[in-house]
Order: sequence, then structure tokens, then C-alpha cells
Amino acid sequence: MIHFTDRLINGIRTKQSPLCVGLDPRWENLPHAISQLHATTQKGRAAAYEAFCIRVLELVQPYTAIVKPQSAFFEVLGAPGHQAMEKIIDKAHALGLMVILDAKRNDIASTATAYAESAFVQLKADALTINPYLGRDAVEPFIAEARKHHAGLYVLVRTSNPGARQFQDLKTDLGKVHEVVARAVNDWSRENLSVSGFGDIGAVVGATSPQELAHLRKLMPQVPFLVPGYGAQGGSAVDCQGAFNAQGIGAVINSSRGITFPFKLDDYQWEEKIVKAARQASVELASLTSN
Amino acid sequence: MIHFTDRLINGIRTKQSPLCVGLDPRWENLPHAISQLHATTQKGRAAAYEAFCIRVLELVQPYTAIVKPQSAFFEVLGAPGHQAMEKIIDKAHALGLMVILDAKRNDIASTATAYAESAFVQLKADALTINPYLGRDAVEPFIAEARKHHAGLYVLVRTSNPGARQFQDLKTDLGKVHEVVARAVNDWSRENLSVSGFGDIGAVVGATSPQELAHLRKLMPQVPFLVPGYGAQGGSAVDCQGAFNAQGIGAVINSSRGITFPFKLDDYQWEEKIVKAARQASVELASLTSN
Repeated sequence: MIHFTDRLINGIRTKQSPLCVGLDPRWENLPHAISQLHATTQKGRAAAYEAFCIRVLELVQPYTAIVKPQSAFFEVLGAPGHQAMEKIIDKAHALGLMVILDAKRNDIASTATAYAESAFVQLKADALTINPYLGRDAVEPFIAEARKHHAGLYVLVRTSNPGARQFQDLKTDLGKVHEVVARAVNDWSRENLSVSGFGDIGAVVGATSPQELAHLRKLMPQVPFLVPGYGAQGGSAVDCQGAFNAQGIGAVINSSRGITFPFKLDDYQWEEKIVKAARQASVELASLTSN
Repeated sequence: MIHFTDRLINGIRTKQSPLCVGLDPRWENLPHAISQLHATTQKGRAAAYEAFCIRVLELVQPYTAIVKPQSAFFEVLGAPGHQAMEKIIDKAHALGLMVILDAKRNDIASTATAYAESAFVQLKADALTINPYLGRDAVEPFIAEARKHHAGLYVLVRTSNPGARQFQDLKTDLGKVHEVVARAVNDWSRENLSVSGFGDIGAVVGATSPQELAHLRKLMPQVPFLVPGYGAQGGSAVDCQGAFNAQGIGAVINSSRGITFPFKLDDYQWEEKIVKAARQASVELASLTSN
């Protein structure tokens, strides 16, 4: 099987865009055309999430190589939510899309292994987001399980929320906390390089400022980036340029609400709006990979 | 409804022990008496986890006020695992036990709210473990949701794994990273004090050394502690003394495998072994609350 990052880069080349479409379904954001067909029970909502997300996958498939379901929105619907997430991931794979499961997991030893198995065996995700606070030995079971399945990880390095600075920007003898994490992630990623020169351990790096993004790219030359904060969260495409290397590779840029909820709830053209938003984001981000 | 920490302290007084029993079910650790009744399918294993954990709850109920299911071991079984966890939590409440859901969640804004709703509304847990790396604004939705339901949170401050020092012990201008987190957690907890003088935001603090535990108790005088690492993980009761204040209150001490898996798989007296282990741990830890 092909290395995670080579599959990722191949997918980006094929779709000619580093766009990643986030799937963050919320009942109150669903088009009436979908929500009216379902009861407001846990089971009904899960069925509506499944129907909506599967339609979104079909609509965005020409414009993106990667999708990122947000686990929390499915978990909150209990077992039916979990089943909906399974089916959405299966559908994504059937459409040739790669899946980054956004679950920000973290724990030690066999518990960490269970989380990783949940992502890579049970849900068959291609990559999982994880939180580094517990240190390398806690990250190790995630790495072992990811490598067993030729999957990837994205470690939270610097998040895009305003309060991220409280702990992530604390100054230490070795630089800011998130810079120390960044260097560690680069070391971990170098253990298993792909043909592209990037490893299989990625970093979540918010598009907080173009300078910071470029600085973190320098600290992590062999780490694939996952950049949230584009679109509805405020970042522009040009703000994300620093996430890419000189060859225009090494990052995926996520947009969730901007692509999946660009319509009014009663708009009968909601599908066309999603297609238009996906196409526009895809083209806009394509420019970042062209130099 | 009574403040989380007052309910916790009342429970500890009633059972005369700060013991917390961790529920970390693993197929290969189940007594044959249970595993032989179930298929090795996802559904069969989930049914076995449910049967085993519900029996454990009945057996340990006289000796503990609190149980801590580990979400990862249920998640790895998909939707049936999730349903098993729901039923186990319901059973714990029916037996008058409080439930700390160990899931180490973290995210921002509405995603954090969804995780918190999943814990406090969908699963009805009394408390949830969370990871602080993203900072206060990311913790805020968890706090808001916990307070709405008179529930608690336990923030990872200093974990017990050897690699925890890699990031948690980095030296900053304001002390080690985990000490900065500790002071923040104390501030957050003080916002909502119980009759006991403790707030509703707790800290996960590994029983790594008695000195460190006592030091962290000083940094967080108003924070309820959850201390892992007792029993099978190597810590002794006396090592945990520092987690308590001068009145002998303010902490729960978790033991998982030492209580739930003290038998050989084919031992037909596995239930008696669990009762014996729970009683012994309960009595041993009782001494910590008596001064």
C-alpha cells in the first residue's frame, strides 16, 4: 500500500487543489429539504446527517481529494450517530476521497491503542487528529497503529482559537511550547518518509498569521500540514501560502461551513450552492500549489 | 441540584473511601464465564463488556462511590460499544454511583459544546476528563455545559506516563508548563465553589511522586483531584496522601485493572476476587481521608 502522504499528494494533484472539506453537521444548519424528511429524535437526526453528508460528498467530489468529518457532531447522537459516521466514511472511500477523522484523541498505552484502532480499523479513516500534551510515549501507540495501516496522524501544534496562546505560546528555554512540539513532530515524521520527502505525522497549524505559518513550515520541513481557519473562520487563501513548501506541496487547507452551509435553509437550490462554494474554494486554493 | 463536588464528597463519606473504580474492559481480560457466552463479533464483544461491567458495578458498589469508564474501549466496538457504555452508565446511576467519563476531549467553540453535550446530555456522566492544550476559550464550552448540568470536569494537568515530562515539564517564565496549567485550573474552579470549598473543575494528577502531588495540591487548593496510577500502575496508597488537604478531602484515587481483573480467566471465583480487591483498595485508601 502507498504511504499516506504520497496518497494525499497524488489526490491533491488529481483534483488540482489542496482543499479539504470539513463535515460538521448540525441539525439547525441542514436544508429543510433534508431535515423535513426526518424526525428530531436521535435516530432521525443521525439519518438526516447521513443523508446530508453523503449528498455533500457526491457534490464536492470533483473539487476535493480529502474530507474531514468532525467526530463530536456524530458522537452527540450516540450509537446512531456513530453508525452514520461509519456510513459516511465508507461512502467517501467509495468516491475515492481520503478521510481525516477529526477527533483530537489522546491517552496512554493500551487506551491510546484502542483509540487508534477505533479510527483506523473500526472507522477505516486515512488519518486521525491527536493532541500532544501527554508526550511522545503517549503518541507512540497512535504512531504504531497508523503505520500498521499506512495511515497518517495530524498532531495539534498551534490551534487557531484566540485562547491558544495561553499554553501553546508560553516561552520556554527551547522556544515557545508549540515550537518545541513542532520540532518533536518533525522528528517523529522523519522516521517514515514518503517518496515526496514528507513523513506520515502531520501538524494542525491554524492560519492565524502568514508569518507564523511560514515560520512553522521552516521548523517542520518534513511535516504535512492541516490548516483550519480558511473560509468561514476568516482566513483567505493567500494567508495560507506559507503552509506550502517551495514546490507548492505539503499542506491541505480545510473549509467546513463555508462549503457545506452556504445556503438559506429553505433554498431549493442548496445543492447548486454547495457545488459553487466547493468549486470556488478549490480554484482559489489551487493557486497556492502552482509555483 | 447539589454541586458536583459536594455530591462527590458526600459519596466518599457514605462509602468511607475515596476509591474510584476504573472500567477498562478488554476482551482478552474477561473471565471465561462471561466471554464464552458471547460471539467475538463487535456486537458480541459489546454485549460481553456490558455484562461484565454491570456485574462489576454490582460487586464494587458497597466499596466505592465513583466509577470511571474509559471511553476508548467502548468506542473501538463502534455503535454497539457506544450502546453498552450508555447502559453501563445508566446502571451505575441506578446503583447510586457517580460516573466520571474518561474521554480526554478537547476542541473549540461549537465542537467543544458537542463533546460536552455528548458527555452530560447523551451519556449523562457526572464528570468528564478534558485536555487543556487549546487554552481557556476552548475549555469554556465544556465549563458552560458542565455547569448547566451541575457536573464536573477533570483537566489533565500532570499525567503519570514517563513521557509526560516532554511537554508538561518544560520550564517557562511562569514555572513548568503543567504548573501554569495548574494555576489556571485553580482559577477556573474558584468561579463555582461548593459548600466544601472546592470548585467544580478538577485536575488529573498522576501519582508520580508524593512530593509532586503535595506541591500540586498547594498550587490548586480549591481543585478536586483525580489521581490515576494507584494499584496495577504501581502507586501505593501512602504515595497518594498529598492529593488530600489537611481535612482529608479533595481527591479520588482510581484503580482499574487491579480491581476489575484480579483473577485468572478460568477462575470460577472471579466475582469473589473482584469483591476482595475492591474491599481491600477501599479500606487501604480510607486511611487517607481520616486525619
